[in-house]
Amino acid sequence: MYTVLEKGGVCSPKGFTASGICAGIKASGNADMALLKSEKAARCFAVFTTNKVKAAPVLYDKAALEHAHFASAVIVNSGNANACTGEKGYADAERMAVLTEEALKLTPKSVLVCSTGVIGHLMPMDKIEAGIPKLVEKLHEDASEEFGRAILTTDLALKSHAVEIKTEKGVVTIGGACKGSGMIHPNMATMLAFITTDLALPIDFFAEFRANIADSFNAITVDGDTSTNDTCIMLANGMSGIKYEDLSLSEQGEFRAALTLVMQSLAKDIVRDGEGATKLIELRIEKAESHEEALRMARFIGTSNLAKCAMFGEDPNWGRILSSAGSSGCNMVAEHTDLYFGEVKVLEGGRPVQLDEKQTAALHAVVRQREYKVTLVLNIGQASASAFTCDLSYGYVKINAEYTT
Amino acid sequence: MYTVLEKGGVCSPKGFTASGICAGIKASGNADMALLKSEKAARCFAVFTTNKVKAAPVLYDKAALEHAHFASAVIVNSGNANACTGEKGYADAERMAVLTEEALKLTPKSVLVCSTGVIGHLMPMDKIEAGIPKLVEKLHEDASEEFGRAILTTDLALKSHAVEIKTEKGVVTIGGACKGSGMIHPNMATMLAFITTDLALPIDFFAEFRANIADSFNAITVDGDTSTNDTCIMLANGMSGIKYEDLSLSEQGEFRAALTLVMQSLAKDIVRDGEGATKLIELRIEKAESHEEALRMARFIGTSNLAKCAMFGEDPNWGRILSSAGSSGCNMVAEHTDLYFGEVKVLEGGRPVQLDEKQTAALHAVVRQREYKVTLVLNIGQASASAFTCDLSYGYVKINAEYTT
Repeated sequence: MYTVLEKGGVCSPKGFTASGICAGIKASGNADMALLKSEKAARCFAVFTTNKVKAAPVLYDKAALEHAHFASAVIVNSGNANACTGEKGYADAERMAVLTEEALKLTPKSVLVCSTGVIGHLMPMDKIEAGIPKLVEKLHEDASEEFGRAILTTDLALKSHAVEIKTEKGVVTIGGACKGSGMIHPNMATMLAFITTDLALPIDFFAEFRANIADSFNAITVDGDTSTNDTCIMLANGMSGIKYEDLSLSEQGEFRAALTLVMQSLAKDIVRDGEGATKLIELRIEKAESHEEALRMARFIGTSNLAKCAMFGEDPNWGRILSSAGSSGCNMVAEHTDLYFGEVKVLEGGRPVQLDEKQTAALHAVVRQREYKVTLVLNIGQASASAFTCDLSYGYVKINAEYTT
Repeated sequence: MYTVLEKGGVCSPKGFTASGICAGIKASGNADMALLKSEKAARCFAVFTTNKVKAAPVLYDKAALEHAHFASAVIVNSGNANACTGEKGYADAERMAVLTEEALKLTPKSVLVCSTGVIGHLMPMDKIEAGIPKLVEKLHEDASEEFGRAILTTDLALKSHAVEIKTEKGVVTIGGACKGSGMIHPNMATMLAFITTDLALPIDFFAEFRANIADSFNAITVDGDTSTNDTCIMLANGMSGIKYEDLSLSEQGEFRAALTLVMQSLAKDIVRDGEGATKLIELRIEKAESHEEALRMARFIGTSNLAKCAMFGEDPNWGRILSSAGSSGCNMVAEHTDLYFGEVKVLEGGRPVQLDEKQTAALHAVVRQREYKVTLVLNIGQASASAFTCDLSYGYVKINAEYTT
């Protein structure tokens, strides 16, 4: 049995402290450096962008994690992505890690680095170097929000969640924070996510972590682009004194469900906060041949400009959903397909349902909601999956077009 | 040596006649039925949408062409796509073909059918049946524009081109017309293209035709969606009295180049006419590992909302181009990559070039043009390819969001 913690975040699990400061990297004067620290070296799972163009901190972290699967801290800056900065950029990322290790008296390769912001600019290392001791000094246990705010770029809202699981062996906690898509020229949407837990996790839990990423951070789409800096790091420090292996099977299932909840809640926050987004739509594919195909089709529809514009226009445009599904490359048979907006069935066996006045009114009530679900039932298998997308609004174009160099 | 024909189109090659009329399918009262006829049965090459959801006329034509690779005429209607209409829709498509065959006294399966417009509505067969005899009666040799206009939906401009090739054996002509993306709810972008030539082509020229499609109609993107009705049909009636095999190798090369010109000109017209488009951008990928990878990367960048919004904003945003290329799944090495807007180099070896005042002014002059080229040089191979895209403007969102049911 688990419960959501009000105002919870990365510091909710035992043994995690954090801090956030204004180091002057952002012209706005908002907080732009953050530090997350575990009292004990924590088992570390990390997944990085698949973009062929990888930022320096991504390259550094991947190398660091090849040696050990543990980390004690993560140093983060916003305002500069340290991407397309060549060898100097890599040296700067490494220096951020080393300075943090020294300030925290940690062993080499025990600190990871994340950056987000403008690309193609060298890091203002003077500001970074001045910031690190301040971050270390300010570390405290109630800093979930401080940390969560300092990692944001043009995000409008804090994205922080935590869940507590009561087990036979005692209480286990999962916390998390993330930042989503912000576009300040010449910046790109970057997703940084940090998950913490005081449960001790075995190395092979990584497969579970990856599966959760597929259904959370990889199941959302604002505009289909993948950035140079995308990173998701999970730290499990075991300071609850409880091991995953020692939980009963049902408790293990609850922990996994709670982890999914935290990661999906963070992921949905990113979509809600997408540029110009006015709606959050869950695209649900049911009775598909496989979970992978269902997820791929859901994500494909979630990137269709036609479908996203119709969502903005509050138009229950089944034609665009069906056509996008058909062009996703995933298996489907039009004549077997049913489609629902909320609970209203608009397509049956690939043919439009003739709606009466009452049903038509219900349909329009659905698409006028800020959040609703579109369900496409393929009737060719047993698998299902969901993706989460936002609408495509004037606001999106404005934010992404207006800034001119 | 070939020359572009002013006001040329599908009727420019010998032995082709056409017509277009208002049958009352469109509420607007614009022309909505068209007929293209060859005096002699013509070798027919056809490529259809890969969408899993295929409109009735697409299913009918595919079946018809399985029996023979010849066709004598194509009957087209705009205003109703005859998609998601089930068995009745298929019977209606077949009836359109049969009635046209009877009216033209042609053998069965010698007429193809194309439809574009609203989906999910049964065809108004009374209007279709009344229209066919009128189309037959009005067939004439100077009807390229009439035909070209009658196939349009919300396209703003006629898309018609023709080229004449002088050979040792005599004159050979290629003509073409197409319609592009129009979105009237619940319609989707549908591409219909018709190519005619009076050169006799061998059956194995199909491979050449497919390759041309890849570099023309499949190299453009307005919003990345594929419709239920997309069709490209080429008719070669041999009425110039000249066979492809009888041309010299250089003349064969000229014919292929002329065909590419006609098809690319039509394809670019579609992009120029994309919803809300204010710019036509050629995305050129050079020194890639293969033509396929280069084309795939170019098309991928062409569907990036971030890149397309930046184009609308006249912002030379190299970060979005590079990041999109990196997330295309195609092979590249950031550190080897150079990027140009027009002739201005903005990236060298994956690092931003420091531009002086004069270069910066030149860069902004490039992105302010209505049409320009962005060239990404990967420096990992010898292959290259281009894709053509338009910008993502307020107009696009307006057109696709405003209509609400």
